[in-house]
Amino acid sequence: MIKVVVLGYGNVGFHLTTALSSAINVSVVQVYNRSVISSEDKSIFVSNLNELKDADVYIIALPDDIISAFSESLPFNDQLVVHTSGSLSIKELPSFNRRGVFYPLQSFSKNQEVSFNNIPICLEAESVSDMRILRDLGEAISTKVVEINSEERAKLHLAAVFVNNFVNYMYTVADDIISEGDLDVHLLEPLIKETANKIKHLSASEAQTGPAKRNDLKTIEKHLHLLRDSDHLGLYKELTKAIQNTYGKEL
Amino acid sequence: MIKVVVLGYGNVGFHLTTALSSAINVSVVQVYNRSVISSEDKSIFVSNLNELKDADVYIIALPDDIISAFSESLPFNDQLVVHTSGSLSIKELPSFNRRGVFYPLQSFSKNQEVSFNNIPICLEAESVSDMRILRDLGEAISTKVVEINSEERAKLHLAAVFVNNFVNYMYTVADDIISEGDLDVHLLEPLIKETANKIKHLSASEAQTGPAKRNDLKTIEKHLHLLRDSDHLGLYKELTKAIQNTYGKEL
Repeated sequence: MIKVVVLGYGNVGFHLTTALSSAINVSVVQVYNRSVISSEDKSIFVSNLNELKDADVYIIALPDDIISAFSESLPFNDQLVVHTSGSLSIKELPSFNRRGVFYPLQSFSKNQEVSFNNIPICLEAESVSDMRILRDLGEAISTKVVEINSEERAKLHLAAVFVNNFVNYMYTVADDIISEGDLDVHLLEPLIKETANKIKHLSASEAQTGPAKRNDLKTIEKHLHLLRDSDHLGLYKELTKAIQNTYGKEL
Repeated sequence: MIKVVVLGYGNVGFHLTTALSSAINVSVVQVYNRSVISSEDKSIFVSNLNELKDADVYIIALPDDIISAFSESLPFNDQLVVHTSGSLSIKELPSFNRRGVFYPLQSFSKNQEVSFNNIPICLEAESVSDMRILRDLGEAISTKVVEINSEERAKLHLAAVFVNNFVNYMYTVADDIISEGDLDVHLLEPLIKETANKIKHLSASEAQTGPAKRNDLKTIEKHLHLLRDSDHLGLYKELTKAIQNTYGKEL
C-alpha cells in the first residue's frame, strides 16, 4: 500500500485525489489545503503543515509560482516530495527532501470528470528506489507511465500549450464568430472531433488543408474582411503566414 | 430516387460520391472529372461535359476559384446546380440554371474515411421545391441538415478554418517541438482528444487554462526561450497576447 499526501486541492489536486483514492494499493492519507475544504469527508483534510502525517509520497499540486517556496516550508526532510508541474525542473524542490516529478499530461477543469487511465504520467526521480515508488503509483491510475527528464518535460509542456491552450482558444474565436450570427455553435462539433481524430491516422502535416495551405488568396481576403476583432484578425494573419511558410506559397 | 451527377473528384467529390452511392433513394448516375479516373467502376466516369446525363441535382465539387467559370461552361439550363463551397455565395453560379448550395461542414482527406452521418449539411436554394430536393438528398446521408444563407455560411466557414485548419497547424507545431527531443508524439493524443471533447460540456471560454490565461509570466518566458522557429515564436506571442486580452491581465 502506497501512502500518499496530496498538497493542494485545485484542479490537479482534486482530480489526482479522486483518482488515487479509488486506486488499488494506494491510500490517500491526507490532503493539505491552505483554506478549509467543504467536502463530504473532511477527516482527511488539513490546513496546517505541522499536522502532516507520514507518507511514502508527498505530491505538491499547487501553482508553479509557489511550488518552490512552499516546498521549502515543508517541516520534514528525507521524504519523497514530488511536484506535478510540466514546466518546472525537479531542482525547484529543495534537496533536503528526496525529489521527484509526477506530471499528468492533461488539462484539468474542476467541473469535468477525467479518466486517468489513458493520461500519460511523466515521472522523474533521483534514485532507482524512488522511481520505483513513483512508477507503482503512476501505474495504479494510468496505463501510460513514462520517465522523462526536466528538459524534455519542458518541451512536452510547451507542445501541450499548443495542442490544448491554444487550440482551445481557437474554439473560443470560432464561438465568437458564430455567435455574431444566428448560427448554432454545436454545428462545429463534428469538425472539431474529426480534426482531433484525424491525427491518429495521418500526421498533422498530411492532414493540413485550407485556404492558407493552398494559398487561396481570394478566400483569405474574404476572411480578413469578415473578422471584426483585431486580435482575431492578427491571429488569422499570423497563422496564415506560418502555414504558407511551412507549405510553400506555390501549389 | 434522386439522380445525382457529381462534378469533380477531388477530396470532396470522392467522399460525396462514396456516401451518395451507398445511400438509399439516391443514384449517382455520373461523375465528371477533367482527367480519366482509374477506378473499379469506370462506367460512371466521364470527362466530357457534353456527355453529361440528365439528373435531379448537379453537384459541383471543385476548388473555389474555378467554380464560377466551370458552372458557366455547363451545356444545359434550368437544371438544379449546386456547389459545395463554404465561402462562395450562391450567386457565384450563373442564373441560367437553378442555383443551390450543398456544403458539408467537414474537412476531407483522401486517405481518411469519413462517416457523413453526423456531418452538418448546409443547404441553400432559391425555391421551395429545390430546397426540398436538397433536403431529401442531405437527409439521405446525414442526420444534421440545416438551411443557411450565403452570408451566414461564410461566417461558419471562417469559424471552421479556426477549429480545423488552424487547430491542425497547432498540432504541427507541437509535432515539431516534440520531434526535436526524444519524445513520442503519441504522448499528446489523450490531451488532444480531451481538449476536443471538453467543449461538449463546457464552453471554450470556461475550458480555457494555461500560462497565458493565468498570466504566468515566468512560464511564458521559459516557453519563449524554448521556441527556435520564428513562426512558432510569433504564434506563441500573438496567441498569448490574445488570450491575455480576452481574460484580462489580472488573476
